[in-house]
Amino acid sequence: MSIRIGIVGYGNLGRGVEYAAAANDDMELVAVFTRRDPQTVKIHTPGVPVVNVKDAAAWKDKIDVMILCGGSATDLPVQTPQFVRDFNVIDSFDTHAHIPDHFAAVDAAGKETGHLGMISVGWDPGLFSLARAYGNAILPGGKDYTFWGKGVSQGHSDAIRRIKGVKNAKQYTVPVEAALASVRNGENPDLTTRQKHTRECFVVLEEGADPAYVENEIKTMPNYFDEYDTTVHFISEEELLKNHSGLAHGGFVLRSGKTGENKQHNHIIEFSLKLDSNPEFTTSVLVAYARALNRMAKEGRTGCVTVLDVPPAYLSAKSGEELRRSLL
Amino acid sequence: MSIRIGIVGYGNLGRGVEYAAAANDDMELVAVFTRRDPQTVKIHTPGVPVVNVKDAAAWKDKIDVMILCGGSATDLPVQTPQFVRDFNVIDSFDTHAHIPDHFAAVDAAGKETGHLGMISVGWDPGLFSLARAYGNAILPGGKDYTFWGKGVSQGHSDAIRRIKGVKNAKQYTVPVEAALASVRNGENPDLTTRQKHTRECFVVLEEGADPAYVENEIKTMPNYFDEYDTTVHFISEEELLKNHSGLAHGGFVLRSGKTGENKQHNHIIEFSLKLDSNPEFTTSVLVAYARALNRMAKEGRTGCVTVLDVPPAYLSAKSGEELRRSLL
Repeated sequence: MSIRIGIVGYGNLGRGVEYAAAANDDMELVAVFTRRDPQTVKIHTPGVPVVNVKDAAAWKDKIDVMILCGGSATDLPVQTPQFVRDFNVIDSFDTHAHIPDHFAAVDAAGKETGHLGMISVGWDPGLFSLARAYGNAILPGGKDYTFWGKGVSQGHSDAIRRIKGVKNAKQYTVPVEAALASVRNGENPDLTTRQKHTRECFVVLEEGADPAYVENEIKTMPNYFDEYDTTVHFISEEELLKNHSGLAHGGFVLRSGKTGENKQHNHIIEFSLKLDSNPEFTTSVLVAYARALNRMAKEGRTGCVTVLDVPPAYLSAKSGEELRRSLL
Repeated sequence: MSIRIGIVGYGNLGRGVEYAAAANDDMELVAVFTRRDPQTVKIHTPGVPVVNVKDAAAWKDKIDVMILCGGSATDLPVQTPQFVRDFNVIDSFDTHAHIPDHFAAVDAAGKETGHLGMISVGWDPGLFSLARAYGNAILPGGKDYTFWGKGVSQGHSDAIRRIKGVKNAKQYTVPVEAALASVRNGENPDLTTRQKHTRECFVVLEEGADPAYVENEIKTMPNYFDEYDTTVHFISEEELLKNHSGLAHGGFVLRSGKTGENKQHNHIIEFSLKLDSNPEFTTSVLVAYARALNRMAKEGRTGCVTVLDVPPAYLSAKSGEELRRSLL
């Protein structure tokens, strides 16, 4: 029997879940829920209804896992604790500082109603969190390093767009190769913010705007840019759309630590991602964890869990015996 | 209360467990068991008894997890199913083809006696198995690549030492950089055995042996060398001991797969290790999983499990709340 999947929100993530569910034989997309007029939302899978999100509760017995594809700023803090009252739910909530609060809200509502929620599933938080957890447990006393990119940071691009005279902008976060090499080399460096990443900005100016003013506003912006080496390129809107509309991203998590009688042996554990499409990869992770969530819910677990609570075998449709034979 | 650890077998792995247990505040080494005369075995930790392995059963209520540090060829197939009758046990059994049989033997004995065993814990099998499991679940339809090295292969070194005229030898398995680069580049290559690894041999000849004969015997040896590009260096025993006694190793697991409506986006998940000491890293993994094993056993689980069955959070001494706040 297939795992019946529902999608809430049909943007980049919602579409990604749709593709990922289609790539897994044991998944069946049964409905897409939207805040827009359902008539205006065209999805790819033939025969799957698009439903007004207000009518979602009527689907509570027809969906095994509801995958929430809203944003972390305003959608998920409301939606996840609300939907877990009727469904087993999974989200990609990625505001690290607010994870404990979000967890508590989903946990309480899930326990009260007998459902299971899984939050912060994706690659960071998500797979990068796993890499940190495994690395910390295996090499106690070691050092963690996380590098992001090369990829577009939505938050930094938005910050540039708020500057007077800027029409459009994209900001790439770029890991510094020399810093990565030093970590890989076992040098266990102490790295400042500036030494880990550079920021590269592609900016479209409004008619008559002053490039020197905009460049200075960017480079001196507190928190976002002032602690980084930042490069600013002024380009046309056409060039921005043509060359900087991609959704590629990636990054590196490294754990470096020492063992032995005199701590004389160094070890490096490295996990990295190189992604052509950030939202499609994030949703591929979500869909694999939806399978695990379904299994954990069937076992009677309620409340809230994260990727740290999930046995790896639960992500797979294969039996334990098959996995031991083919992958162990 | 500390987790009380016992070690069976005091070679490179046993010593590694001793160091790793000392590096974890919640672990206490309570005894080392040996087949040798206990008087002749000197361990590093003051006050910890060395006991004849025949007397191990007397310690059944004093040890939470027994870590088995024997070899996979002849020790563990006997020891693990035997020790799980009295203890919760963990081993690093690494003969991939025999894992299903080993699992079945430990599972049956553990279920019968109410203990839990965990097998094949280390880096391959172990962390590399995890990387393969996560990668396969997240990118279905993708391709797996595993590269080993640079590091000494004990099996290949032994094979060379069996050749007539060879006094001593070390064999390094070396991943081919160009093949790794092609995978990282998203080219999804089909790689032959020869294209993935080269083999580099350092050989000490016996007095009067014929180097041409030995070199030919090595390079044409079925399974071990004939499918690889192999380099043979003849060196002195002094040079071998001085420059080739290290236990460094490592490797790479990559998963490459496509997503999207037309599978137009490629993604690379890469996990790699660069280890100064293969046995010390392996035992660092064993000790972290001993913590998880202790917790799963306390929850009432019996029989046999592998790393694929263990929630990542169980490897850590930190609470779920702490992990969510600091690592997620």
